[in-house]
Amino acid sequence: MLYVVGIGSGNEKHFTKEAEELLNRVDLIVCYKNYKKFVERFNKPIYTTGMTKEIDRVDYALKEAKDKDVALVSSGDATIYGLASLAYEINAVKNYGIEIKVIPGITACSLASAILGSPLNHDFVVISFSDLLTPLEIILKRFRYALEGDFVICIYNPLSKRRKEPFLKAMEILSEFAKDNNYVVGIVKNAGRDNEKYLITTFKELYKDIERYLEFIDMNTILIIGNSSTKIVNGKMITPRGYLNKYKI
Amino acid sequence: MLYVVGIGSGNEKHFTKEAEELLNRVDLIVCYKNYKKFVERFNKPIYTTGMTKEIDRVDYALKEAKDKDVALVSSGDATIYGLASLAYEINAVKNYGIEIKVIPGITACSLASAILGSPLNHDFVVISFSDLLTPLEIILKRFRYALEGDFVICIYNPLSKRRKEPFLKAMEILSEFAKDNNYVVGIVKNAGRDNEKYLITTFKELYKDIERYLEFIDMNTILIIGNSSTKIVNGKMITPRGYLNKYKI
Ligand SMILES: C[S@@+](CC[C@H](N)C(=O)[O-])C[C@H]1O[C@@H](n2cnc3c(N)ncnc32)[C@H](O)[C@@H]1O
Ligand SMILES: C[S@@+](CC[C@H](N)C(=O)[O-])C[C@H]1O[C@@H](n2cnc3c(N)ncnc32)[C@H](O)[C@@H]1O
Repeated sequence: MLYVVGIGSGNEKHFTKEAEELLNRVDLIVCYKNYKKFVERFNKPIYTTGMTKEIDRVDYALKEAKDKDVALVSSGDATIYGLASLAYEINAVKNYGIEIKVIPGITACSLASAILGSPLNHDFVVISFSDLLTPLEIILKRFRYALEGDFVICIYNPLSKRRKEPFLKAMEILSEFAKDNNYVVGIVKNAGRDNEKYLITTFKELYKDIERYLEFIDMNTILIIGNSSTKIVNGKMITPRGYLNKYKI
Repeated sequence: MLYVVGIGSGNEKHFTKEAEELLNRVDLIVCYKNYKKFVERFNKPIYTTGMTKEIDRVDYALKEAKDKDVALVSSGDATIYGLASLAYEINAVKNYGIEIKVIPGITACSLASAILGSPLNHDFVVISFSDLLTPLEIILKRFRYALEGDFVICIYNPLSKRRKEPFLKAMEILSEFAKDNNYVVGIVKNAGRDNEKYLITTFKELYKDIERYLEFIDMNTILIIGNSSTKIVNGKMITPRGYLNKYKI
């Protein structure tokens, strides 16, 4: 049987009881090589592959799952830019007939939200800026609609050393919208991990000093852009749910 | 100190280690009355209020937090339609000066995604249909932009016995878009709890038989509407990430 398991930040405190018990019980753990450190404590055989080797990783996990209990581990939640759908797809295309179960985990935007304050406290969008599998036009189109809708926006995979174009183009679009509204922006790096760092700024500050932010932001970073009501309250990034507009306190 | 804590579904298996340890340690737990059953096992004093008494609940928790460790408990993640932002706001407006920390939890759309298959495996929107605090026009405007952007859409607070209009109006909008695309729709009720139920259908089926769905859907239900690529694979709802368009297997 194949379990596709989300482990949140990878920090033990963010594992659910279900994920913890499962990893203690399976015969084999399969994961991205940089996440090996998060699952070594279970003392299980671990199979890893690197970035862009996702198909190999999933195919291996499925084959091994024929006669073993295998955990295919993702950071965050396994269904959010994780490998869960690929597991279902390969299982169907190759007719493996493996039983698959997903174990949910805390996704990066929730980890980041808790650190920043409460920026997700109204309607929001989750979008990846990786154009490896999604054409850049679609990413930018979605980003624009998210702004038109005044959604809070969580940006996964914001940029990498070699992939800065989607981010820069998106910031151009954001600069149009920022004429009417100086968006609050929260940035969290390595949420829940060693070297966790965060900062809360505004779009105008970020855009003015973009080189410095391009240095700071990396593949382990998530950005949350507020909606038009998001504000900074005692140093925290807060999106009001609206109670205080409606009720007097 | 005030901890604003997400407990996922409320089922013990979905608590993180951090939430579990915290609730074992605090002096007082404050929560919505229907969630009392999820925290009784900690054997702590519990203060509850009902629906629409959120301000009382948060104010009480903040006041008690002056000289106690208090956990204000939300289902799912406390920053996603939870009480975290209200806690920060009241703390500021009333100048309480309480230290506040958010403990992240698994939000309903991740719980539902794991049950349905992997519908969240591409860019998505989280939107609440409750028009108690958000004007209906804003809800519908956002819903339309989400469809224009071809996002997967997670609908929180879809309807209640007395509040069906936002849902019905949104389904009208969806019917325009569904001319080109018969959206896959996943519906999960009481995810992770007793009486968990789910079904996977298409928008056309749902719309044809809307009365039956209006019976099924309630305040403990979340809907996930697929994007134009979402499909049903071996009975599961899957949104491909795109690997199999790009790579041959
Ligand atoms: C391939 S996606 C995987 C997302 C993961 N499945 C989840 O649900 O969080 C990787 C991206 O998620 C974000 N991310 C994941 N974990 C993070 C963390 N601990 N801190 C900050 N960002 C994180 C980053 O934007 C990163 O580029
Ligand atoms: C006030 S919101 C709270 C959301 C919560 N803070 C979270 O992050 O999941 C309540 C709505 O969340 C959704 N919800 C929360 N828990 C759920 C569960 N276990 N199963 C299905 N839907 C759930 C339902 O749409 C419900 O109307």
